[in-house]
Amino acid sequence: MLKNDQLDQWDRDNFFHPSTHLAQHARGDSPSRVIKTANGVHIEDRDGNQLLDAFAGLYCVNVGYGRQDIAEAIAAQAKELAYYHSYVGHGTEASITLSKMILDRAPSNMSKVYFGLGGSDANETNVKLIWYYNNILGRHEKKKIISRWRGYHGSGLVTGSLTGLELFHKKFDLPLAQVVHTEAPYYFRRDDLSQTEEQFVAHCVAELEALIEREGADTIAAFIGEPVLGTGGIVPPPAGYWAAIQAVLKKHDILLVADEVVTGFGRLGTMFGSDHYGIEADIITIAKGLTSAYAPLSGSIVSDKVWKVLEQGTDENGPIGHGWTYSAHPIGAAAGVANLKLIDELDLVTNAGEVGAYLNKTMTEALGSHPNVGDIRGEGMLCAVEFVKDKDSRTFFDAADKIGPQISATLLAQDKVIARAMPQGDILGFAPPFCLTKAEADTVVAATAAAVKTVLG
Amino acid sequence: MLKNDQLDQWDRDNFFHPSTHLAQHARGDSPSRVIKTANGVHIEDRDGNQLLDAFAGLYCVNVGYGRQDIAEAIAAQAKELAYYHSYVGHGTEASITLSKMILDRAPSNMSKVYFGLGGSDANETNVKLIWYYNNILGRHEKKKIISRWRGYHGSGLVTGSLTGLELFHKKFDLPLAQVVHTEAPYYFRRDDLSQTEEQFVAHCVAELEALIEREGADTIAAFIGEPVLGTGGIVPPPAGYWAAIQAVLKKHDILLVADEVVTGFGRLGTMFGSDHYGIEADIITIAKGLTSAYAPLSGSIVSDKVWKVLEQGTDENGPIGHGWTYSAHPIGAAAGVANLKLIDELDLVTNAGEVGAYLNKTMTEALGSHPNVGDIRGEGMLCAVEFVKDKDSRTFFDAADKIGPQISATLLAQDKVIARAMPQGDILGFAPPFCLTKAEADTVVAATAAAVKTVLG
Ligand SMILES: Cc1ncc(COP(=O)(O)O)c(C=O)c1O
Ligand SMILES: Cc1ncc(COP(=O)(O)O)c(C=O)c1O
Repeated sequence: MLKNDQLDQWDRDNFFHPSTHLAQHARGDSPSRVIKTANGVHIEDRDGNQLLDAFAGLYCVNVGYGRQDIAEAIAAQAKELAYYHSYVGHGTEASITLSKMILDRAPSNMSKVYFGLGGSDANETNVKLIWYYNNILGRHEKKKIISRWRGYHGSGLVTGSLTGLELFHKKFDLPLAQVVHTEAPYYFRRDDLSQTEEQFVAHCVAELEALIEREGADTIAAFIGEPVLGTGGIVPPPAGYWAAIQAVLKKHDILLVADEVVTGFGRLGTMFGSDHYGIEADIITIAKGLTSAYAPLSGSIVSDKVWKVLEQGTDENGPIGHGWTYSAHPIGAAAGVANLKLIDELDLVTNAGEVGAYLNKTMTEALGSHPNVGDIRGEGMLCAVEFVKDKDSRTFFDAADKIGPQISATLLAQDKVIARAMPQGDILGFAPPFCLTKAEADTVVAATAAAVKTVLG
Repeated sequence: MLKNDQLDQWDRDNFFHPSTHLAQHARGDSPSRVIKTANGVHIEDRDGNQLLDAFAGLYCVNVGYGRQDIAEAIAAQAKELAYYHSYVGHGTEASITLSKMILDRAPSNMSKVYFGLGGSDANETNVKLIWYYNNILGRHEKKKIISRWRGYHGSGLVTGSLTGLELFHKKFDLPLAQVVHTEAPYYFRRDDLSQTEEQFVAHCVAELEALIEREGADTIAAFIGEPVLGTGGIVPPPAGYWAAIQAVLKKHDILLVADEVVTGFGRLGTMFGSDHYGIEADIITIAKGLTSAYAPLSGSIVSDKVWKVLEQGTDENGPIGHGWTYSAHPIGAAAGVANLKLIDELDLVTNAGEVGAYLNKTMTEALGSHPNVGDIRGEGMLCAVEFVKDKDSRTFFDAADKIGPQISATLLAQDKVIARAMPQGDILGFAPPFCLTKAEADTVVAATAAAVKTVLG
């Protein structure tokens, strides 16, 4: 077995970590952590620390860690057939079965699933399909994609453009010109504090209408949105938002992409976020929850309406020029099949809804009246606590004070609980595995209250 | 067990395959094939057909199928820890070890490895890093990427733009403006048949110089190329090409990305194609051979020169805003470690060189004098046969005659050997697993000669 200090040196010398301060890491100025094993909602590092992971990795280990059913499905697939490609009509029992299981669970207007690796490449596929779609329909100018500020849709060049967060644009020359952004449905951060939720929805609609007017509807191909804003702050939409937005999109013949990378397969207490909010999407992006991260796999579920045009496209132009070597990778497909079965068998979607509601309720009871807690919000197994300098005037802390990161670091140090300091604003995010128990929720809430007390008094 | 006709129906109803004629597949007009198991160089479908896969999946199953060492490493990792993320300095023993193993094998000027999922997203990362690099250096206009016609670098929006093949541009509005293309180093297809290889290299250099002059060197950030053109036709460069190109790039301070997705980890009979051709890259793209496709994993190896600027960037701006949820996925990392060990233990790089040379020699002996064979070329375990209507005048067949696809279909039907009809031109490509034996090479060559005879006489 390797020694920990040896691993640490190798790590700092060779490993370029994502979303990391590269210089501090290489110099050894910032902590590293080598994870060894995990079970249920707990992970364990090589130093023997047990941590309660209330963010399920990156809100992806939805069924919890250490599920041997999924591990065995992966092992069996690796032994039998680790890889063959899925180009030109090739498949495996696992990939075909999974495509059927996904369509069985998806909204009824959905038709086919294209498999990718991660959420970013799935959204990349979506943009390609949308451009192809409008080219086949002869609408060569209808190509721009509308996204929302604070949306998160990936970290590529185009998908990072769809993302509406400064950290992912700065120094990368993003967003690219093909993407335009509109207002985030973030009621707590509305400019005009006097607005009711209903008025704020009307404001979001007016902003969208104005943007479409400015750009010209004939230049706008699609609108992409997460049912609940995730990385942008874990923000459920105000009541009526999705119905109002969809009416605008219909009017201007703009496709709707529901990015369900976080919400797909149960996080909101329903199989899809689209079911939850009455969203009728043309394309649905899936990733994380599809395999609970046990193996990389993502997907673009396309509706009948879009699929028909894609078929017309290949009848006119021959095979579609799109594919990843690892599309529908058998290991990912086997993990997906086992994962979706497990979700059903253990009724984890119901548990996500019930324990998620409990988590939100107890968090509100514990922290709702704290003078620096401006908002506690959530939906299903998602919860966020947003901090403010002053509650009445809704004044925010200076970003340089790093209140969010401080609280998350304190939570980890004091009580070994992982929650995520969301990247923009002082927001502590919770997205535990669906198997969280009420007792574990109590632990998370008590630890959070203690961390807030330590940092803010 | 599922019945085959049931799987076939599920497939056609639900599964959107990459690079497929979507309408024909959905209607059941084109064949589908469900792969069940595989061993060595052979795959087996659910109807019991055994096929000799002389393209190693999509030139990726380099160590051959059914390697239980890799399957067991995957199984053990899945059981112990299927997933934790690698953001903010997190790692696993597998991912850290693999980062060290990669740097141990890479050219000596390389410094760190960023892990992705597939070759496309690795090249996406590369473009992001290159833009970031020039922004940190204050060269805000130096952003365009030069690629070659017939290069293949992925299927995303930007990476599909880097790709220089019509199939991947048509109807997708690619290439995007940030990418410009220069001449492919494809001696057999030179315009001026009177040119020697040396003159043709001078021509490629002149074309590149002219392009840089036209665009302005201060707008060009990088040049990307595969050491040997792969999907564009399996074309080794003419002698002296890489030295001559690198001199131009150095002069204009243009970074060089060596896309070693196909050539990395042994396919040319050397660990990297960069070693083979004396390429001193600033970034190296890796994927396929890194895990032999047993699990999705790719990487961007960055040089000291680039890394230093990235460090400066995070010292000035904080954590880098780039990451995939599945960066350095433990399952992929475990597969990579086991795969690289196996390559060493079985000395597969040497075998790739030796049996590859044998394959190229015997193919030339069998088909070199056929009147419709214009060129037979290869390097290491890569070989291509290019067909022409008339040899002396080097007249090509009409694309509509589909000579390449016909020969590949005949090869499969007659002798159950898989070779790939490359997408642009009538070119039959071979890229077998490195463990190919000389006897298996004989089988491939005999079957190919027979298929050519059937189709062309
Ligand atoms: C809503 C959403 N879309 C897309 C992505 C990108 O997924 P990945 O990191 O797998 O590329 C994420 C990742 O967090 C996400 O939350
Ligand atoms: C040289 C090269 N680069 C990049 C890619 C893209 O890799 P992927 O299909 O894994 O996205 C390929 C795939 O064939 C390739 O051959």
